[in-house]
Amino acid sequence: MNAPSDIKSYMLEVGRRARAASREVARADTDTKNRALFAAAKAVRRDAKKLLAANSEDVKSARAAGKDAAFIDRLTLTEKTIEGMAEGLEQVAKLPDPVGEISELKEQPSGIKVGRMRVPLGVIGIIYESRPNVTADAAALCLKAGNACILRGGSEAVRSNMAIAACVHAGLNSAGLPEDAVQVIETADRTAVGMLLSMNEYVDIIVPRGGKDLIERVMRESRIPMIKHLDGVCHVYIDERADLEKAIRIADNAKTQRYGVCNAMETLLVAEKIAPKVLPRLAKIYADKGVELRGDEKSRALVSGMKPATEEDWYAEYLAPILAVRVVRDLSAAIEHIAKYGSQHTDAIVTEDEASARRFLREVDSSSVLVNASTRFADGFEYGLGAEIGISTDKLHARGPVGLEGLTSQKYVVFGSGQIRA
Amino acid sequence: MNAPSDIKSYMLEVGRRARAASREVARADTDTKNRALFAAAKAVRRDAKKLLAANSEDVKSARAAGKDAAFIDRLTLTEKTIEGMAEGLEQVAKLPDPVGEISELKEQPSGIKVGRMRVPLGVIGIIYESRPNVTADAAALCLKAGNACILRGGSEAVRSNMAIAACVHAGLNSAGLPEDAVQVIETADRTAVGMLLSMNEYVDIIVPRGGKDLIERVMRESRIPMIKHLDGVCHVYIDERADLEKAIRIADNAKTQRYGVCNAMETLLVAEKIAPKVLPRLAKIYADKGVELRGDEKSRALVSGMKPATEEDWYAEYLAPILAVRVVRDLSAAIEHIAKYGSQHTDAIVTEDEASARRFLREVDSSSVLVNASTRFADGFEYGLGAEIGISTDKLHARGPVGLEGLTSQKYVVFGSGQIRA
Repeated sequence: MNAPSDIKSYMLEVGRRARAASREVARADTDTKNRALFAAAKAVRRDAKKLLAANSEDVKSARAAGKDAAFIDRLTLTEKTIEGMAEGLEQVAKLPDPVGEISELKEQPSGIKVGRMRVPLGVIGIIYESRPNVTADAAALCLKAGNACILRGGSEAVRSNMAIAACVHAGLNSAGLPEDAVQVIETADRTAVGMLLSMNEYVDIIVPRGGKDLIERVMRESRIPMIKHLDGVCHVYIDERADLEKAIRIADNAKTQRYGVCNAMETLLVAEKIAPKVLPRLAKIYADKGVELRGDEKSRALVSGMKPATEEDWYAEYLAPILAVRVVRDLSAAIEHIAKYGSQHTDAIVTEDEASARRFLREVDSSSVLVNASTRFADGFEYGLGAEIGISTDKLHARGPVGLEGLTSQKYVVFGSGQIRA
Repeated sequence: MNAPSDIKSYMLEVGRRARAASREVARADTDTKNRALFAAAKAVRRDAKKLLAANSEDVKSARAAGKDAAFIDRLTLTEKTIEGMAEGLEQVAKLPDPVGEISELKEQPSGIKVGRMRVPLGVIGIIYESRPNVTADAAALCLKAGNACILRGGSEAVRSNMAIAACVHAGLNSAGLPEDAVQVIETADRTAVGMLLSMNEYVDIIVPRGGKDLIERVMRESRIPMIKHLDGVCHVYIDERADLEKAIRIADNAKTQRYGVCNAMETLLVAEKIAPKVLPRLAKIYADKGVELRGDEKSRALVSGMKPATEEDWYAEYLAPILAVRVVRDLSAAIEHIAKYGSQHTDAIVTEDEASARRFLREVDSSSVLVNASTRFADGFEYGLGAEIGISTDKLHARGPVGLEGLTSQKYVVFGSGQIRA
């Protein structure tokens, strides 16, 4: 479709087309969808130069608009990221197709057999920011799960996104699937987002991917259910019965392996019985890596030079080399702290005590709860999903990393032989 | 809690208490929850006279307010319905506890074992109309699934609902669980509903149960995800390869076994090749039972005295002895009709052809799709769920009849032995 003058009718037309295409891709068999994905990968490799050219125009405009280096970095495509996109499309093609799978088929006293069939959700609206590779990743996951998608990337990336979409369209075409199964919103006008969030007759689910401002806007405006997480205030709790070496390795990795990611640890909780043994050693490691520590009184009594933590520090998602540290009485106090200050994203316990591990697993109400492993594992690839459209901290539908299965639903299917209700 | 003067602070207090109680019931083991349910059943039987007395006051007021006979009928408790409530509480106690179950545990290349644990949703708000027995049913299901609930019944049933809640509280007490796990809103003020629908920090999910007006209001106002269905425009499609006797039995039962229920057939679709054999026979059965038929031209050519169907008839949920009838070319036309006019609730095909059955199952995007069985089977008990909080036609989370599992969610649990991310 061509870029619009009247945003409202443009968006409604995008919605109508997506709904129609969604019925076709829902019916498509696995081979057809995979052929489209492999052909799209081929088109991405073939058109690498075109993609780089379109992207360099986006980058030029972004520079002219005064965007910062981190922004430019996220926006920029390279030969390597383009090859990564092509490989990503192929990887999704190789994943098992969830659609059509029937599970839990069981005969009931009436004689009917009742089961559940995995089916596509329909139309998925994805709102994201400057990374153009999301265009290929999201399109691939939606298509493989039998859904149509409407992609609204950052306005600064619109040329890159359209060039990538052209490759995906080539793939869809060559497999005989409708191009409308993957539509990129071709306007920088921000009212298009508002329309997308309100077209609940055409859009079944919204996936916002980006910073807190974006997610908050979508939460305020959307009349459509979402797969999203807002905050990643992740905790590691070192239990009094922790293995010291595991505790140090995990607390180090969870904070310092990467700072700007949602599954990095933001608050370290340490049981008071083990704190004198573990905190000074950890403080040394963090100091060497330039991590600023902000502690409660008990932590500061054990580690010199630590800044005092304020109430806000317990709520903070730093996404930076800063860590809040608190010494807690015991497991119960750790669970209470996480319930009060956490964001239900990802929390880990380090302990050799099975009863404590079991209690932490059961009582911490987060999308991922780990025992003796780094919070950094909360990720679709690490969990074996093969890919990830995002991480959900909501309780309905999908929780935690969301892969293909999270882009589907289950309906009831009933096999009878003429049964009627008495 | 006592009835409120300031609705807003009253509702916020109800929310806070529910949230606190939800954490206690989430932790409760199966035995404790079952003890509470059995004790509540005992209290219902013991207090049967009190329940009848409270109910007769509600009935008196409703009569004085000029409510019609059907309304009074739904509102009225009898010794039999009270015994039914007690049995319902015991049945839920006997259902398997979904909470804490870990599934799909699998070792990943990093060495971590990743699985999913079934966990309660948290706090469930239920908004219903005049049937007081919903109070006991809903409380039982929410509690067994480890959730706290806030119950807002019809204002005309408030005395009955509070008397039932007192029995449930007795049960909770005797098992050492907090009474706040089941709270009944004690005010007839309708602004309480608006508050309930907006307290997303305290309420995780809303289940509206009632007529279309109620559901539409909840859909307009709620900022909280819902489990709901709006319409039940259910179809039976008689394929050209249907067994004639099965077709007649099913089409009869789906319409006439009960008229006022959401899974009753509202439109009959018949393949044109089989229509001359099946429609006249069915028309005779419907005529004998007083069902008014409204048909398209082709149906009317086969059955004399049929009223013409208008465009609105295809969208209609009659909940009455009226049936829309349409002769369609084939399976594709039937699927198109259902996609356009259906409500994604429950649809059935009658056919002996496996390929047609499979295509119907896959392509009809409804919460229940049946082959050779009456639409009336779309029900939690008939599906073996043991109980039902409602039927969902939404695509996210639970679709179709919602039992205990639909009142839970799954989180990721990870078992490591010191793994960190490279």
